[in-house]
Amino acid sequence: MSYRVGIINVTGFAGIEAARLLLNHPEARIVAATGRSLAGKRLAEAFPALRPYRDLMITAEIDASVDVVFSALPTGESAKACLPFINAGVKCIDVAADFRLREPGAFEQWIGGGQPHPAPELLSEAVYGLPELNRDRIVAARIVANPGCYPAASVLALAPAFAAGLVTEQVVVDAKSGISGAGRGTGGGYSYSEVNEDTSAYKIASHNHQPEIQQELAALREGPAPKVTFVPHLVPMTRGIHATCYAPLSGRASQREVDDVYREFYDAAPFTAVVDSPPHTKHTLGNNMCLVHPVVDERNGMLVSIGVLDNLVKGAAGQAIENMNLMLGLDQTAGLDLAAVYP
Amino acid sequence: MSYRVGIINVTGFAGIEAARLLLNHPEARIVAATGRSLAGKRLAEAFPALRPYRDLMITAEIDASVDVVFSALPTGESAKACLPFINAGVKCIDVAADFRLREPGAFEQWIGGGQPHPAPELLSEAVYGLPELNRDRIVAARIVANPGCYPAASVLALAPAFAAGLVTEQVVVDAKSGISGAGRGTGGGYSYSEVNEDTSAYKIASHNHQPEIQQELAALREGPAPKVTFVPHLVPMTRGIHATCYAPLSGRASQREVDDVYREFYDAAPFTAVVDSPPHTKHTLGNNMCLVHPVVDERNGMLVSIGVLDNLVKGAAGQAIENMNLMLGLDQTAGLDLAAVYP
Amino acid sequence: MSYRVGIINVTGFAGIEAARLLLNHPEARIVAATGRSLAGKRLAEAFPALRPYRDLMITAEIDASVDVVFSALPTGESAKACLPFINAGVKCIDVAADFRLREPGAFEQWIGGGQPHPAPELLSEAVYGLPELNRDRIVAARIVANPGCYPAASVLALAPAFAAGLVTEQVVVDAKSGISGAGRGTGGGYSYSEVNEDTSAYKIASHNHQPEIQQELAALREGPAPKVTFVPHLVPMTRGIHATCYAPLSGRASQREVDDVYREFYDAAPFTAVVDSPPHTKHTLGNNMCLVHPVVDERNGMLVSIGVLDNLVKGAAGQAIENMNLMLGLDQTAGLDLAAVYP
Amino acid sequence: MSYRVGIINVTGFAGIEAARLLLNHPEARIVAATGRSLAGKRLAEAFPALRPYRDLMITAEIDASVDVVFSALPTGESAKACLPFINAGVKCIDVAADFRLREPGAFEQWIGGGQPHPAPELLSEAVYGLPELNRDRIVAARIVANPGCYPAASVLALAPAFAAGLVTEQVVVDAKSGISGAGRGTGGGYSYSEVNEDTSAYKIASHNHQPEIQQELAALREGPAPKVTFVPHLVPMTRGIHATCYAPLSGRASQREVDDVYREFYDAAPFTAVVDSPPHTKHTLGNNMCLVHPVVDERNGMLVSIGVLDNLVKGAAGQAIENMNLMLGLDQTAGLDLAAVYP
Repeated sequence: MSYRVGIINVTGFAGIEAARLLLNHPEARIVAATGRSLAGKRLAEAFPALRPYRDLMITAEIDASVDVVFSALPTGESAKACLPFINAGVKCIDVAADFRLREPGAFEQWIGGGQPHPAPELLSEAVYGLPELNRDRIVAARIVANPGCYPAASVLALAPAFAAGLVTEQVVVDAKSGISGAGRGTGGGYSYSEVNEDTSAYKIASHNHQPEIQQELAALREGPAPKVTFVPHLVPMTRGIHATCYAPLSGRASQREVDDVYREFYDAAPFTAVVDSPPHTKHTLGNNMCLVHPVVDERNGMLVSIGVLDNLVKGAAGQAIENMNLMLGLDQTAGLDLAAVYP
Repeated sequence: MSYRVGIINVTGFAGIEAARLLLNHPEARIVAATGRSLAGKRLAEAFPALRPYRDLMITAEIDASVDVVFSALPTGESAKACLPFINAGVKCIDVAADFRLREPGAFEQWIGGGQPHPAPELLSEAVYGLPELNRDRIVAARIVANPGCYPAASVLALAPAFAAGLVTEQVVVDAKSGISGAGRGTGGGYSYSEVNEDTSAYKIASHNHQPEIQQELAALREGPAPKVTFVPHLVPMTRGIHATCYAPLSGRASQREVDDVYREFYDAAPFTAVVDSPPHTKHTLGNNMCLVHPVVDERNGMLVSIGVLDNLVKGAAGQAIENMNLMLGLDQTAGLDLAAVYP
Repeated sequence: MSYRVGIINVTGFAGIEAARLLLNHPEARIVAATGRSLAGKRLAEAFPALRPYRDLMITAEIDASVDVVFSALPTGESAKACLPFINAGVKCIDVAADFRLREPGAFEQWIGGGQPHPAPELLSEAVYGLPELNRDRIVAARIVANPGCYPAASVLALAPAFAAGLVTEQVVVDAKSGISGAGRGTGGGYSYSEVNEDTSAYKIASHNHQPEIQQELAALREGPAPKVTFVPHLVPMTRGIHATCYAPLSGRASQREVDDVYREFYDAAPFTAVVDSPPHTKHTLGNNMCLVHPVVDERNGMLVSIGVLDNLVKGAAGQAIENMNLMLGLDQTAGLDLAAVYP
Repeated sequence: MSYRVGIINVTGFAGIEAARLLLNHPEARIVAATGRSLAGKRLAEAFPALRPYRDLMITAEIDASVDVVFSALPTGESAKACLPFINAGVKCIDVAADFRLREPGAFEQWIGGGQPHPAPELLSEAVYGLPELNRDRIVAARIVANPGCYPAASVLALAPAFAAGLVTEQVVVDAKSGISGAGRGTGGGYSYSEVNEDTSAYKIASHNHQPEIQQELAALREGPAPKVTFVPHLVPMTRGIHATCYAPLSGRASQREVDDVYREFYDAAPFTAVVDSPPHTKHTLGNNMCLVHPVVDERNGMLVSIGVLDNLVKGAAGQAIENMNLMLGLDQTAGLDLAAVYP
């Protein structure tokens, strides 16, 4: 028995990665995959890295019956493409940001460029797809809003401290991303010669992942709303997110107490691990792990907590497969028990 | 049923990669793995990238019964470590160069630093582990000499032309390698700041892969011995071999004729593909493919043929698993039907 | 007329960079340069990049009369080597950290590994060599403590806001550095294969640049001592520091007010520029600029201020030459009016 | 006294580099610089790396009287833009390929995409701007065809052997280039995520630098025309050319004899040095050196000769300034006696 998966926009980096990972899945396989400029080509021909997909044709529309659909369309275009599948009862995982912000008007303000959401009535139903927080609701969901790559790392780094009330609401998230986060076909701004040997920030305190992080932290406890200053940076590597999060401690907490809180929080999570030394993004390259490392800065009364992951795996396609597993009643780790590619 | 694999020196890059790939293998698993400085640690602790190996201990010696052993020790130290296993009837795959050069004295001259081979009587028995050339002999072998990363790419790029007599014996192989080819713990010469943004050649016409390439090309046809000028280069990437091979055409051969010869030669090979445009090393990152691209330079009567692969997969650990599959009677592609990691 | 410069430990990255930049200086030249393992070699032979130094011999000791000496020895070894020159009336610029922390005991705690400072009586005399803050005192100094690469970027990013009282004392500095910051000959931890395609933090809230930043911010105003949580990161590039600094606004300040404060503060500074969009480290590669970019995050009442520079130029050797110019009564920009290397 | 330089298309990488280097020139300065999309901006504003050019405006046309003009327009568009200056008696250095191939019809075939050269009568007058070969003719030239980056490295690596008759005419040039060789604004094909961690060949035996290399080698001796198989590769670094050249020895020549021939040939050349160990591209990053390293492969009767340089300096803008110096009667090295940027 093998579940049938459709991928909308297989030709972006998240779509390509979903195809790579699903090759390894024991109980699901891609039966249809769409693309725009590349429709009519075989997937293996368009992307030689996907050589085992010699027979799968890229099509303009999902042209086969599917049990689950991933949309890897750009944010702002995705919800519309998902609607027919949702309406037809196909389980839907939106890898874009379209179903993530639940507050009315947030889509319009942060994502849609002033346009309203095409199906606002579904926003409250969509489940934020971070199983470390929402496992049971994902199991039952029709629509999963797959987390953004930055929020996945940041929320996982901060959630135990937030839930336990260890920190105040004023948070800084300084995040570093590899260039693939900018997507495929994003043109001149990311040419090798200009991006190599360079670090820079962008969308300082104005990225749409800022309200996403706030929303998910807010859901963890009562009390004043989190105020998150989020600054994303590009660093010259292809993959990887390194979120360094800073939150003032609300009381005295020792390193040991913090470690205990974190380890207990993630005790049952197969893909988030609390580690004892500063984690390296490279230790997650190509697999679905998020490595979390909380440090108490006693001198300054500050919690520093780091989350690292591969933006295309735990930050996109791997997370989507993990969500699919839960939605289909499969083992959460099916197809995802992978080592990272090292070195 | 699952075959039991032992890895000697799991802590080098080839050993780490074998561990990564074997996680994916349906019919074999690592039951023992040695290391020197890291003995006593769990594999997942020594290398966070290998997180699924939470229970496997690195030991000083192979301490379990095994069906097959990989040696990933440095060249010159490997043969001695393999002997007890060979003598005990364990199938042995030497990822180092110790069993590759069959001519008496070649080990001493090129590899052993003046020391003789510890078991010269086995050199003629060891099979050069390139299934594209020696499949049947690998199936029957007790000892497989796993090819060097440069020779794997170079010989696969040139073999069809050599076997068909399309080219003369004077060959140039200009090869470019990622830095991981230099191995782990190789110290100051490969520090990031010095190697990044740099290309350089080394061991010009004096690398021990030169006689290895010559030996394997010589085995493909009668006639004058191949004369191979081999120049390896380091380019600033972690993984990948790009071998650009040049051989004067012995007669007139059209591009189409050459293509036909190549495609027929590799028709049944699951892991070597003839491609229509210049291949990218990145299209093989993390998988076991070798992509070959022959071009006829009509103006100058020269064949240019390119072979690319991942030095740690088809150039080391993946090739070793492919050889293991054949030696154990398994499907040649078991555990290896992977997409490359892209981007 | 040409001033005579001696460089102690020309063979580290800061020493090499000082040699590169001084080639371009109209009124100073290197007459002696020491090294340890490389003593007896010509500088151009030891470092082919320094080809114009065909005649300068690396020696064990400074063996010529000099007007000014730079020490580029490792932190902890430098003060001792500087003493004979200071005592002999030679102007001394210490590129290491040995004269930076003025508080008694700080050297012992943060830098000397428990050993006391070899000349604690000089600590109060040494001037912190950031001309943007201390120009007049540098002009008159016998000893200049050249700033650390991280503090240079961080203090320049925060100084105007601190001096003007715009922010509270609780500061986060999240800094990203190229790998050359780790120095030459730092061995296995920084091998290309392990550092490439990786981002990681280190010495979280425990780096000796943390008290250095605190000390310099404290000097800018009365009131509670700054509490700086400083987290350095390594990103895969050779050169560059990107310091992203976060400080809660103490009142309401508009973007425009902040911009005005910053521009006025740096109005006369030849090497620090306030820029209108997020600066790129690459825009300072090889020159002595620090680019500063303050942003008001109104939603959260937070000032985000970025400082970028080349760790080996404005963060080390270029800054040292700028200080030398001031100490010798030369134009502050002599030899330093350079474009960055782009791309 | 300062000569007045105009740069046509200052906004490409070669133009930017010319601007960087000319800052350092004691007797020449840019008085006019054109660009297309960026006309109307200050140069320092368009390219923050060129900060010292705060007052120079990018214009649509050269709008000042100039003594010499550099054209850094794309190949195929450059000759036409040079003609008015040549006709007006302004010394002209074409950094593009438009004046390089002297044979009638070669422009049309290799460069112009089928279009004829706009001023074929000038092709025989234009001097190929490699001072190591043509110094006296450059001194007297009105038009200099600045060499291509690949030919500069390749011809300098082979010229002494060719001129001395040490090698036969069948040559292989395997060249590796950093990505900046592809130019600025070359769009999607060179995005970081796709080019990073990748090596690939392109235009195999069909690049227009192939006839250029042949032409210049042919000029060095009588006898059969050189047959050059030229294969360019892209490696993941920003700058640098590494040309590895292979030519069968025509007789027996020892390493010592070859070294002597090379050293004598370049004895008076300020910017080409024969080195004793394999040169690194990084040792020329940002300066005007070409490092040459010939090796005799005695076993195979082959000369391997390597040339490395920075494609934007000795391979473009630095070479242009060197040519300018000669054309204006200045010291050949004026403004160019630079160290490389290292690390």
